[in-house]
Amino acid sequence: MPVATQGTIKSLTPDDLRAAGTQIVLANTYHLHLRPGHELVAALGGLHRFMGWEGPILTDSGGFQVFSLAKLRSIAEDGVRFRSPLDGALRMLSPELAVDIQHALGADIIHPLDECLGYPASREATEASLALTLRWAARSRARRRELSAPGVALFGIVQGGAYEDLRRRAVEETVSLDFDGYAIGGMAVGEPKAMLYDLTEAVSERLPANRARYLMGVGKPEDLVEAVARGVDMFDCVLPTRNARNGQAFTAEGPLTIKQARFTRDAQPLDASCPCYACRSFSRAYLRHLFMAQELLAYRLLSLHNVTFFAGLMRTMREAVKASTFGAFRTRFFERYRVSSEVVPPLNSDRGLDLS
Amino acid sequence: MPVATQGTIKSLTPDDLRAAGTQIVLANTYHLHLRPGHELVAALGGLHRFMGWEGPILTDSGGFQVFSLAKLRSIAEDGVRFRSPLDGALRMLSPELAVDIQHALGADIIHPLDECLGYPASREATEASLALTLRWAARSRARRRELSAPGVALFGIVQGGAYEDLRRRAVEETVSLDFDGYAIGGMAVGEPKAMLYDLTEAVSERLPANRARYLMGVGKPEDLVEAVARGVDMFDCVLPTRNARNGQAFTAEGPLTIKQARFTRDAQPLDASCPCYACRSFSRAYLRHLFMAQELLAYRLLSLHNVTFFAGLMRTMREAVKASTFGAFRTRFFERYRVSSEVVPPLNSDRGLDLS
Repeated sequence: MPVATQGTIKSLTPDDLRAAGTQIVLANTYHLHLRPGHELVAALGGLHRFMGWEGPILTDSGGFQVFSLAKLRSIAEDGVRFRSPLDGALRMLSPELAVDIQHALGADIIHPLDECLGYPASREATEASLALTLRWAARSRARRRELSAPGVALFGIVQGGAYEDLRRRAVEETVSLDFDGYAIGGMAVGEPKAMLYDLTEAVSERLPANRARYLMGVGKPEDLVEAVARGVDMFDCVLPTRNARNGQAFTAEGPLTIKQARFTRDAQPLDASCPCYACRSFSRAYLRHLFMAQELLAYRLLSLHNVTFFAGLMRTMREAVKASTFGAFRTRFFERYRVSSEVVPPLNSDRGLDLS
Repeated sequence: MPVATQGTIKSLTPDDLRAAGTQIVLANTYHLHLRPGHELVAALGGLHRFMGWEGPILTDSGGFQVFSLAKLRSIAEDGVRFRSPLDGALRMLSPELAVDIQHALGADIIHPLDECLGYPASREATEASLALTLRWAARSRARRRELSAPGVALFGIVQGGAYEDLRRRAVEETVSLDFDGYAIGGMAVGEPKAMLYDLTEAVSERLPANRARYLMGVGKPEDLVEAVARGVDMFDCVLPTRNARNGQAFTAEGPLTIKQARFTRDAQPLDASCPCYACRSFSRAYLRHLFMAQELLAYRLLSLHNVTFFAGLMRTMREAVKASTFGAFRTRFFERYRVSSEVVPPLNSDRGLDLS
């Protein structure tokens, strides 16, 4: 899922997303609650009509953003209090309000308010946080039952931090509440790569086989392949669009950095095998020129390409899983794809409000 | 002509331009000379292929930008010396080099190097400047003859500042050099509106009827209507795209400023009669949200709308002229169109390199 933080996949239209092969997008409850406000979106017919996207929309609960972005937050049993970065107003988000907001937005897949810890966190803090998340999950489920929302799926979020036994407990107790699908939360927050893979596997293998499994905030192409290998079905990440705006394009051979001098006179497309408009129409040399000149079209074309690449990667993996050839696909992928060793900040880090 | 300063109409693709009804675009010799360089563009097959635009391209001579943007310029008989704002390197632009650059870019309509004075300028300075522009025009014409460029049109530029008799002299001497079309330069540089209209009329009525007349750097919708009434055929301006990025959308009723609170819950499109993708797909409320959230899609959608509006206005005027109903059109236009009294800087002012 590309991320429509503020009700738009940055620089792209719904037509672009369809052409890229996008099936579903994620929108951020926290951001849309603060601006333009979920009542406004509801009054205008809901988020699908507001942003012109007819496909399904998944919303997160807003918890991640409150904990990572908002100022002066204080957590209590009833919910979390914070100040809006937009106007400094004191706000409160409760499990019930989080469900109400997502319901007002008209999302197809919604999530309970959860507490998302950073990495590292102590065992004691993680245990207390998990217990709160589970109590909030039960309240979210109850609130959702009070609202008539046929066809809307409520996913449970499995937390538990970096502790495998807590993760196992989290799976058990979350699944006992019987959600429509399961998200693996609190990952991609700075932990080592091996831990991301191991914990994902530990959680994924314990989740029910007949429910979708969604790894939140992940990730790079190699992470998607490794997580699918561990049984994950769904992902969201700002990486395709954020990195596009930083000049990084993904290809079957690995990422490339368009500002590099070696592309100055390169008449080839970004990726000769890519069907996107950018690859059909423009050379690397032109895209590099646009990027160096800080032209808006650079961000748009690289975003379109990257979203197309990620949607294509997921489609390829779906087909391989169905054909029982995923193992061979995975081997081929890593033979061809040069994994970038570039250190990047936690992938979720730029869902923030840019007030500059 | 929308303005592709750096080889791109900011935020839009060639497909967008075609959908908007754009027939021809302007690209800036000065900017493309400095970055990525005309030799690079030529090596990659010319500007049409580089930017993916199959329609005609008009290039200015670079003179306007050297005089308005470059630092440390010094003018001599042979040409103008300046420092590149990109790297501080000393550069020289001569009438011959300006033709060579435009030839290398592969433009369809090219222009001689001219000196563009600001407003106001003394009569003495204007007279000397006009004389230099005319000598450079003759050299440009000679240089163009040396190059084999069938199908390429070289337009003459009529200068003469704010002095009607100098403008008349400029027409006579420029036309005596026999160009393929005629540009009216040195307008929209800060002079009063009445002077723009009067001088345009004085020049236009003296230009040959069988050659295109192009008013450089103009302008607002009302200016286009008034200039067409005075016999002008062609225009270029950054206004549609620059003002889009500042949140201004043009409609048949006049411009509207999308950030205004009155659009917060407005479910209507920008302009119900507009066929553009933005008007077919999105409400003013959504566009306002995008703009307030500083989303790139806001700039793109408003740019697409404005370019569509301007191309539609020109098409309507062409049809009215052909049907001999232009007078009635002009009356109807001003009955409906609420002219903005907003003070704007000279329209050409943001062709600069944004080095921030």
